[in-house]
Amino acid sequence: MSASATPLVLPPGVDQTRFDAFIASTRDVVGVQNVAIVTGEAQHPEHTYMDPSKSHDMYHVFDKDYFVSSSIISPRKVPEVQAIMKLCNEYKIPVWPFSVGRNVGYGGAAPRVPGSVGLDLGRHLNRVLEVNEKNAYCLVEPGVTYYGLYQHLVEKNLDGKLWIDTPDIGGGSVLGNCIERGVGYTPYGDHFMLHCGMEVVLPNGNLIRTGMGAMPNPGSSTAISPDEQPGNRCWQLFPYGFGPYHNGMFSQSNYGVVVKMGMWLMPNPGGYQPYLYTFENEDDLPLIVECIRELRLGAVIQNVPSIRHILLDAAVLGPKKSYKDVDRPLTEDELVEIQKRLGLGRWNFYGALYGPTIIRNAQWEVIKATFGQIQGSKCFWPEEGRLSPGVLDIRAKTLQGIPTHDELKWVDWVPNGAHLFFSPIAEVAGEAANLQYSITKKRVIEAGFDFICTFTIGMREMHHIVCLVFDRKDAAQRDRLHRLIRDLIDECAVHGWGEYRTHLALMDQIADTYCFNDSSLLKFSETIKDAIDPNGILAPGKNGIWPSTYDKAKWKLSAASQVQQRP
Amino acid sequence: MSASATPLVLPPGVDQTRFDAFIASTRDVVGVQNVAIVTGEAQHPEHTYMDPSKSHDMYHVFDKDYFVSSSIISPRKVPEVQAIMKLCNEYKIPVWPFSVGRNVGYGGAAPRVPGSVGLDLGRHLNRVLEVNEKNAYCLVEPGVTYYGLYQHLVEKNLDGKLWIDTPDIGGGSVLGNCIERGVGYTPYGDHFMLHCGMEVVLPNGNLIRTGMGAMPNPGSSTAISPDEQPGNRCWQLFPYGFGPYHNGMFSQSNYGVVVKMGMWLMPNPGGYQPYLYTFENEDDLPLIVECIRELRLGAVIQNVPSIRHILLDAAVLGPKKSYKDVDRPLTEDELVEIQKRLGLGRWNFYGALYGPTIIRNAQWEVIKATFGQIQGSKCFWPEEGRLSPGVLDIRAKTLQGIPTHDELKWVDWVPNGAHLFFSPIAEVAGEAANLQYSITKKRVIEAGFDFICTFTIGMREMHHIVCLVFDRKDAAQRDRLHRLIRDLIDECAVHGWGEYRTHLALMDQIADTYCFNDSSLLKFSETIKDAIDPNGILAPGKNGIWPSTYDKAKWKLSAASQVQQRP
Repeated sequence: MSASATPLVLPPGVDQTRFDAFIASTRDVVGVQNVAIVTGEAQHPEHTYMDPSKSHDMYHVFDKDYFVSSSIISPRKVPEVQAIMKLCNEYKIPVWPFSVGRNVGYGGAAPRVPGSVGLDLGRHLNRVLEVNEKNAYCLVEPGVTYYGLYQHLVEKNLDGKLWIDTPDIGGGSVLGNCIERGVGYTPYGDHFMLHCGMEVVLPNGNLIRTGMGAMPNPGSSTAISPDEQPGNRCWQLFPYGFGPYHNGMFSQSNYGVVVKMGMWLMPNPGGYQPYLYTFENEDDLPLIVECIRELRLGAVIQNVPSIRHILLDAAVLGPKKSYKDVDRPLTEDELVEIQKRLGLGRWNFYGALYGPTIIRNAQWEVIKATFGQIQGSKCFWPEEGRLSPGVLDIRAKTLQGIPTHDELKWVDWVPNGAHLFFSPIAEVAGEAANLQYSITKKRVIEAGFDFICTFTIGMREMHHIVCLVFDRKDAAQRDRLHRLIRDLIDECAVHGWGEYRTHLALMDQIADTYCFNDSSLLKFSETIKDAIDPNGILAPGKNGIWPSTYDKAKWKLSAASQVQQRP
Repeated sequence: MSASATPLVLPPGVDQTRFDAFIASTRDVVGVQNVAIVTGEAQHPEHTYMDPSKSHDMYHVFDKDYFVSSSIISPRKVPEVQAIMKLCNEYKIPVWPFSVGRNVGYGGAAPRVPGSVGLDLGRHLNRVLEVNEKNAYCLVEPGVTYYGLYQHLVEKNLDGKLWIDTPDIGGGSVLGNCIERGVGYTPYGDHFMLHCGMEVVLPNGNLIRTGMGAMPNPGSSTAISPDEQPGNRCWQLFPYGFGPYHNGMFSQSNYGVVVKMGMWLMPNPGGYQPYLYTFENEDDLPLIVECIRELRLGAVIQNVPSIRHILLDAAVLGPKKSYKDVDRPLTEDELVEIQKRLGLGRWNFYGALYGPTIIRNAQWEVIKATFGQIQGSKCFWPEEGRLSPGVLDIRAKTLQGIPTHDELKWVDWVPNGAHLFFSPIAEVAGEAANLQYSITKKRVIEAGFDFICTFTIGMREMHHIVCLVFDRKDAAQRDRLHRLIRDLIDECAVHGWGEYRTHLALMDQIADTYCFNDSSLLKFSETIKDAIDPNGILAPGKNGIWPSTYDKAKWKLSAASQVQQRP
């Protein structure tokens, strides 16, 4: 095997010779066509499949080549994932697994530690292993996207019977979204709550199945590779199994590589009606939120609805300059103009009714009576055609679990548009929502950006997603954005608000805000990390968890880190 | 401090001198009145509070004094729990925490390792720390029982607004039931799924809060003990927090002592109607189960209903001899006679409708049409009075979360009645339910016991609870029972069915049935155990997880272990 090319960035502490030896070994495992060196040059012909979105953060807030992999390895089957983990231990090389690489707004496929090996699970491990109609679940590999799963149901003529739950954009991985604890919008919107059963490759290469999957199927043969053995009959039916329930450990963590996951699917509820409620005024927010808490807790609203700021809808429908060609945040008056032009509110609530007509009617009466208290509120059903085609038509699909890609368009609000999410959790309470909104809006506008946000409403909280759109080719803008989000994290923490998920660049800062009792939880997480990954090879630094093989103080990033010095 | 008394059983490998020194130290921590030696003799006057149910398994399947603690320590506050953990590490003494000690049918308060120190959390740590009306949750300490929580709501005049979810018997701990992954019967029946936020003392004595609890509250002062600091504003609202979600690890495990837990409460659904459907014939079971799967998955049935075997209801209403004074299992004909006498079916389905009248009516139409397909089915509402007062009246309370104790009576089916649960998970599928029923029934009757069971129906599975009632003073009967349950575990495992929870005596056997890929999950659990509890002091052997400080082969129990040799 010839020496490999020189990557843009070598793994930390690894010289070219060791890297070459490692790459040669990985090629023996997965085949030469499944190992690509990230050189920053044109790719070798055999690597044309590999686009930069697998090695880079396409929405980079640092320079393009800061968070970057040294190589991308695409295992063809689970035992190859296991073998790669063993090689990473042998050569002490950090590995960053990703499913499809669409963790956009949070770093995409890029690794926390520059020069890590990117483990591209989705390229080959992309099968829908099972759809069980009777019990309403599926079992998927990391490469199955929402589109792919939906298409699979359509082909099997099951899409009328079983609904999936999709986030705003359908191109991501069902499994990847779930373990990052993403959400969708149907009654099955809490993906992590509604997954059931995992198969996980541990950092040492061992393979486990969680929950009932830990009990072998009758007649399992040791002649078959464990990962190919049929799962226990209740693996996708009962999440907990016997003894400690480990699944949560494998979410948002660096404890294992999830290679199979069960997801519960929603049986067709027997009827569906999406709707939009618009609310005219900025200061309607507290009352909207108070109304929603009652409706959601009382199960009148059964799903994960969202309250969207006017500019999110506006951005889906056109770039900023199509509304106003200015190089500053839009003013209040300009927002009002856009509302009028689009026939929308300052706040737009996208909800849906589920169930037979009689039940939908009962729900609708309560919803109308509740929102009717808010002066100037208007309701729309998509089939009425009173609005130009727009976001309601897209949400009408999303809220019944039909994946779309239309909402990607809001990233083009500015030229070379990229985005970063600031995602604090908030109480479903008017006063709190308003305070969080005011604080974030003020800082965003002061930093020179338009304020765009959406609140997605869970069981007892809201994910307040602040969408920071920026020009990724404008270094000064990126720098302002980076400082802005760091300030937002700190200011929200002072109020006791924490983020549920974040970009690579901000993981340590956010982990440090979860510092109750001298950061005892983070220390516990690191104790576990060292026990199950003594060489610290799996996704070091993910969400602030560093193995003791790294000097975490050296690896912390700050706004000043944009000079891109690597430790 | 005077030397302590000699306990019935010393901790393994600990002599009286070390035990005395340990006890003296614990008295310095919790006060002399909160440390009791389990001597088997009359208790010291200052220990009269301590009844044997805190140190023994009252439903012992081995001799009464096999699973027994050496002492019971009752910490008064969380820092004392932390201090006791540190002493246990210092003196290398195993400690078995319990909340209230009502884990009946699974070992009660008794420890897996004889001679462990029993940590009685519930005696002093028994406060309802918060009930939040607006957001519908509570925060409780281990000693809060279902009765206590319900009474608290009544006193605050909140019982009409917020419903709790209770298991069959209301005397157990809300927190303890949840971490053992017990279930109740309302739409909030999956207790573990609906808890939110924990405070945990780790084996080394450190204190963590999980989820959003890991973010300090604004204005927290280091002058206040961490456990007394107010929780983060979203601690009971959003379970996951940031980074790995550890809560599942602390359920059914020996990784930490949970000292506070949030539980979501159900807002009054605006209407409630319990009902009973009776089904005449034994072989109706498959069709009943098929009907229920559809209704449950389709959310027509919104809660955790149960299908109860006639003898479970009969036993609640009277001892066996009140029906038939025989010393053998009842025959088919005798079961039919009992059905007739009680006006019940062979299978009795207790369900409920929730919501406003219009919604309940819609659900009821579907339920009637579905169960109407089963010949001989009859339905009853409690207010009709067509049945003598009985189980429907009890279930009418349970299904709206009002705790009762009436169902304890079924344990008196035989003299000196005790019970042991065999609890396999089953698919909600007619064929599977029938096969599991046939297998278990056959063996139970062959072993000379009456077959009594209930199926509680979760989201996509059933907990099949086989209630084994026996005379705890009859050693031969206990021995038969023990062999029976060991056979049931093995036979069900051959079919791929595993238990969700078990008695102390059976933990290792069941853990060993979860042996996928050379028991890789159990090994992983033990790796974590050793990392966070290197001295192996916390509940060694719980659910088959042994620290490496124990030779687990020596500690395994078998049917022959009834000779009570301790390693």
